[in-house]
Amino acid sequence: MAEPVTLINSFEVPGPDAEGFIIAWERTRDYLESQPGYISTALHRAVAPNAEFQFVNIARWQTAEDFMAAIQSAGFREAAEGLAGYPAHPALYGVIRT
Amino acid sequence: MAEPVTLINSFEVPGPDAEGFIIAWERTRDYLESQPGYISTALHRAVAPNAEFQFVNIARWQTAEDFMAAIQSAGFREAAEGLAGYPAHPALYGVIRT
Repeated sequence: MAEPVTLINSFEVPGPDAEGFIIAWERTRDYLESQPGYISTALHRAVAPNAEFQFVNIARWQTAEDFMAAIQSAGFREAAEGLAGYPAHPALYGVIRT
Repeated sequence: MAEPVTLINSFEVPGPDAEGFIIAWERTRDYLESQPGYISTALHRAVAPNAEFQFVNIARWQTAEDFMAAIQSAGFREAAEGLAGYPAHPALYGVIRT
């Protein structure tokens, strides 16, 4: 069985928008955690308020196909609409060195 | 005692440079893991070869001060010189939601 994949998604969020962003992220999480292949997620917030990426989400999915199906599902666009205004840099990764 | 902090560092690396980047990253890791406060690290490589950030390093340190001391230490610049040519986006984070 293949190793799970890791989504790393870095968000550009202006400081004053932080609380609204978190609420929108929670709504998106609530939707995605109901989808097949979802394992876990962790929203990271920068220690420094002026970080280029104030938030980074790191999530685990069973397969890349599961993740792609989830974000292309009928409910995703509505669940994630609150995040649409924030530039995001998502990609799927695997660990190659420790 | 404070929670450890998480370094998330996204690197822009052209595809043909990947093997050289990994060797340079390993040299930097070998240095940093000898420094006080180092806990662990994991180099992530994108599944898709055209990802904006082909590599993302996620490391744990006991405190932000430990990490800052390590990258300002005398040996760091030499150990990390092979990474200097790659645009990097490092910041320290804590988990706020799961």
